[in-house]
Amino acid sequence: MTLSRRTMLGTGLVALAGKRVLAKAPQTPEPVPAPASGGHKPSVVVPNGSVLPSKVVRGVRVYHLVATEFDHEIAPGLVIKAWGYNNATPGPVIEATEGERVRIYVTNKLPEVTTIHWHGVFVPFGMDGVAGLTQEGIGPGKTFKYELTFDRAGTFMYHPHVDEMTQIALGMHGMIVVHPRSGESARVRDYSLMTHEMMVPIGARRADPLAMNDFNVLTFNGKAFPATDPLVAQVGDRVRIRIGNLGPMDHHPIHLHGHAFEVVATDGGTVPPSARVPETTVIVPVGTVRVVEFTARAAGDWPLHCHMTHHAMNQMGHAAANLVGADPAGVDAKLSRVVPGYMTMGQAGMHEMSTMRMPQPANAISMLGGKGPYGVIDMGGMFTTVKVRDHLVPGQDPGWYTGSPAAGEASPSDLVGDGITP
Amino acid sequence: MTLSRRTMLGTGLVALAGKRVLAKAPQTPEPVPAPASGGHKPSVVVPNGSVLPSKVVRGVRVYHLVATEFDHEIAPGLVIKAWGYNNATPGPVIEATEGERVRIYVTNKLPEVTTIHWHGVFVPFGMDGVAGLTQEGIGPGKTFKYELTFDRAGTFMYHPHVDEMTQIALGMHGMIVVHPRSGESARVRDYSLMTHEMMVPIGARRADPLAMNDFNVLTFNGKAFPATDPLVAQVGDRVRIRIGNLGPMDHHPIHLHGHAFEVVATDGGTVPPSARVPETTVIVPVGTVRVVEFTARAAGDWPLHCHMTHHAMNQMGHAAANLVGADPAGVDAKLSRVVPGYMTMGQAGMHEMSTMRMPQPANAISMLGGKGPYGVIDMGGMFTTVKVRDHLVPGQDPGWYTGSPAAGEASPSDLVGDGITP
Amino acid sequence: MTLSRRTMLGTGLVALAGKRVLAKAPQTPEPVPAPASGGHKPSVVVPNGSVLPSKVVRGVRVYHLVATEFDHEIAPGLVIKAWGYNNATPGPVIEATEGERVRIYVTNKLPEVTTIHWHGVFVPFGMDGVAGLTQEGIGPGKTFKYELTFDRAGTFMYHPHVDEMTQIALGMHGMIVVHPRSGESARVRDYSLMTHEMMVPIGARRADPLAMNDFNVLTFNGKAFPATDPLVAQVGDRVRIRIGNLGPMDHHPIHLHGHAFEVVATDGGTVPPSARVPETTVIVPVGTVRVVEFTARAAGDWPLHCHMTHHAMNQMGHAAANLVGADPAGVDAKLSRVVPGYMTMGQAGMHEMSTMRMPQPANAISMLGGKGPYGVIDMGGMFTTVKVRDHLVPGQDPGWYTGSPAAGEASPSDLVGDGITP
Repeated sequence: MTLSRRTMLGTGLVALAGKRVLAKAPQTPEPVPAPASGGHKPSVVVPNGSVLPSKVVRGVRVYHLVATEFDHEIAPGLVIKAWGYNNATPGPVIEATEGERVRIYVTNKLPEVTTIHWHGVFVPFGMDGVAGLTQEGIGPGKTFKYELTFDRAGTFMYHPHVDEMTQIALGMHGMIVVHPRSGESARVRDYSLMTHEMMVPIGARRADPLAMNDFNVLTFNGKAFPATDPLVAQVGDRVRIRIGNLGPMDHHPIHLHGHAFEVVATDGGTVPPSARVPETTVIVPVGTVRVVEFTARAAGDWPLHCHMTHHAMNQMGHAAANLVGADPAGVDAKLSRVVPGYMTMGQAGMHEMSTMRMPQPANAISMLGGKGPYGVIDMGGMFTTVKVRDHLVPGQDPGWYTGSPAAGEASPSDLVGDGITP
Repeated sequence: MTLSRRTMLGTGLVALAGKRVLAKAPQTPEPVPAPASGGHKPSVVVPNGSVLPSKVVRGVRVYHLVATEFDHEIAPGLVIKAWGYNNATPGPVIEATEGERVRIYVTNKLPEVTTIHWHGVFVPFGMDGVAGLTQEGIGPGKTFKYELTFDRAGTFMYHPHVDEMTQIALGMHGMIVVHPRSGESARVRDYSLMTHEMMVPIGARRADPLAMNDFNVLTFNGKAFPATDPLVAQVGDRVRIRIGNLGPMDHHPIHLHGHAFEVVATDGGTVPPSARVPETTVIVPVGTVRVVEFTARAAGDWPLHCHMTHHAMNQMGHAAANLVGADPAGVDAKLSRVVPGYMTMGQAGMHEMSTMRMPQPANAISMLGGKGPYGVIDMGGMFTTVKVRDHLVPGQDPGWYTGSPAAGEASPSDLVGDGITP
Repeated sequence: MTLSRRTMLGTGLVALAGKRVLAKAPQTPEPVPAPASGGHKPSVVVPNGSVLPSKVVRGVRVYHLVATEFDHEIAPGLVIKAWGYNNATPGPVIEATEGERVRIYVTNKLPEVTTIHWHGVFVPFGMDGVAGLTQEGIGPGKTFKYELTFDRAGTFMYHPHVDEMTQIALGMHGMIVVHPRSGESARVRDYSLMTHEMMVPIGARRADPLAMNDFNVLTFNGKAFPATDPLVAQVGDRVRIRIGNLGPMDHHPIHLHGHAFEVVATDGGTVPPSARVPETTVIVPVGTVRVVEFTARAAGDWPLHCHMTHHAMNQMGHAAANLVGADPAGVDAKLSRVVPGYMTMGQAGMHEMSTMRMPQPANAISMLGGKGPYGVIDMGGMFTTVKVRDHLVPGQDPGWYTGSPAAGEASPSDLVGDGITP
């Protein structure tokens, strides 16, 4: 924890233009049963991400992951040096069909050894990717090949199994989606999301791999709101969200507004219908996948977010002084002699900061919010929306939903002598 | 984290008189099916809390919540400036019947904007209460009205969806209980509890909304043991506890002694019997409700508490030095020159502090314990008891249970030459 | 948190010889139905631990636990003063048969009062072991007797219920295994594991009971990898692992490689088959038991570990500076004037430290790793392996598994013009 995290001087909530947020609103293609070999057509949608290219060579599906360091934008205002795969964090989604034999080349362009462990996949032991135990680490500049069969449909993950503290903290993780050979039994909008948490000191360009707490950069697929792409669905659609957590330390409770869902699968397999439980918030522990499904029930831009309050906000300095209820006039006068322009904030709560465009420290998104149809949405971090519409027009940005009457100001006469007004 | 948290000077465990603890032992009324409109009779019991008044106006049940700042006693010795509803934290329980149309006026008497989000309720999008996204924030002094239908029976929650970091941290959260239209299928003692966590620096009067860890004030329905009201039941009674967690960061494992229970519902709906799992500890993640049920099996004052050890104690200074096994004589001599009366504690563990009444810092409950039938109960925080009796007398305080022989001292001869004594 | 935790000077990853790791590889005896009285034969295997001796006296099974302070080796290099039972942490496993009446003598050789609470057991209230509430604390030098009937088969736990913050933090916890009277329906390899977490400042000999975060000593049955005994099984064997968590604060996600398993029981009872869910990682909340079962599917040394990255490593100084990507030459030059021999580490990640034998601070295991068949395994803490073999030879150390071809280096020509190489 550096001194720069201990102060909120000059930070504030800044709202982005709404259209930037929606620039990449994805549309789900019709799901297509992927043939066991060749001609494979991606059907999972990856908000803010992509599917790893592959090709079939003599009956084996071949992929190539390159472990790299690269500049990664968390949200406008914060660019970090991340570690990931093919210059992305999370890495591209590996998509395949049940029963496929696959070969995955892994090239290491990092300064230390790495490996890949195929979390949840029933691999031969020698392909398990644990440095020292199943193989030597892949040295810088080297390329290794893993040979596996995806013998179960399901959702799995990949990550290094050497110096995990550093490599995972900096962004090395990815999802694996194996479709059933028989195809889907019904049409479904199929999304893949990974949670992640980092501690990036205010103004720094690297996550601190030693952090065990105080994570201040929380992401879905590597992005913090308002840079998170929304998910879209039409009323009545079946929606599936495959949520994976390979973050270092936190079990994230992911909450959806306006709907209840069920966990239908984990990285261990399908949850039998008799064991399914209705929820509005699914806890996704570290090292697990939770695949949830629900039917889009009503039009709206329904928030989907981590319910830990500090995980749905951006890069707050959590060690600052508590000023709620304080009268800072005296302090400001004294501090402004030392720090020109110093102004204390927060004595009436934190939302006030959303009404002003505060100067930001370089390369930081402290309290960055989003611009919504009714003003600033003062959320951040692990927050996105599921945009449900009565009728979606393919290829057209659904924009903000304003078709439902908003809560309105009450008439003063409503509250006279009603016997319940406190 | 302030300097005042880094020291335990002058703190100690203080036991309250038992009768104070039991002053408000609640009795469960017979459950009454609430009619769909009018004549609604509350049937959920809220330890240390209350049910929100309502009245039916032209077929709509009307409520009024006022967001306020007020003095709140966590336990005798600690009064804080809390934010809540109708001068309570948690706010009063909103009770209704499945299918009821409701109107909820929300008046904001806080210094910043607020809203209310109806967590788990299937609302029209415009009533979802997310500032910027579904409505403008409710300004100070303004009153808004929300119009909903509680179309599902179940247990839900309410909280602000703007500046959640501050507003939830200071106490703004509440429960919603919607009874099935058909009434209960069997008699049940029906309790509502909310967990919460705050970081209140020793001697301070406000929770620190920036805290992500080191929470030191842990509560059930806003109170820390020994100020938590007990729950009561008769042997053979069906008992339901609706546990809600809108705290900022922690997933609380709530443990009941002497019984096993099942989670029968979440805020997402009813858990089908095929999916129910016996437990003695239920993890209640942030942003979830876990409704547990069990049959009271034997008389006793069975503890119900968070099993995280630091969550069943009061406002400990967690950054103090570890003195277990230390010989503090030299340190004490030196420090007492600077800090008159300084005495190191803890070198033989912490329980020694329970045997003395230590001077407390002003407005703090460091290591406050309760007075039980066998001496000091050195628990605190998120701890209460379920008082099960063979026969409950309505309106009569059940007191402490002493009808079961306690573990007793062994005779020395018991241990001679038994072949197993180490 | 002491200054000694804030520095990594002189720390590094040290690999132990492989044979030390495997010195005590346990073999599971055939399960034997334990008769209701007398002649009881242990059948649960306790890696790095033992089963508590007992004898039957006039139809009652009698045990003796002694609460003691003792030297305990976490892993070679780190010896702490622990508190536990019969000089062990966790204490010995109490094993019994459903329906047995038992008497447990508890002698207190600690400097403060203690009790034992029988977590999950349906005891008479007076035997519940809560100081102040069900009995007076057991004073130093005293012996108490608890009289119970284990009326349910299952897995339970024991721990003090007084000054839990100190006593549990220092190691006082244990498992209880009650076998069904009817015996097992099928042959099963039956293991008992307890998780635990401590914060032991680098160089210190005691865990800090005030720690709520930053735990740096993570253990299975009191040992950190590479000192954790492996579990063993033959391909096709049914394997049961009873995992108990009485640690102070963390819910541990325990992950098994190469397999999926189901939770078949908790400390609350058996999970009905209709409610079972396939998983590869089970979250074990504080205050719970999760009994998992699976069939060993393929030969290998399959890692079993907590998936929180900081919990599968040893005693890292989590408050050190982040050096990834830094050029430390200038810093080193300056610091070496003050700290002779100072060398910054970590600028290319942390794994580099595994290739050198760094000088360790006295009594510390910072970054201690294990020696595997392919070099250093840079894991630690809550990490062990399930050694699955096609054919196990009773009494023979299975060694490392090398029967599966490891991932191998790719030929450069493999990657030419394949259309997918980024």
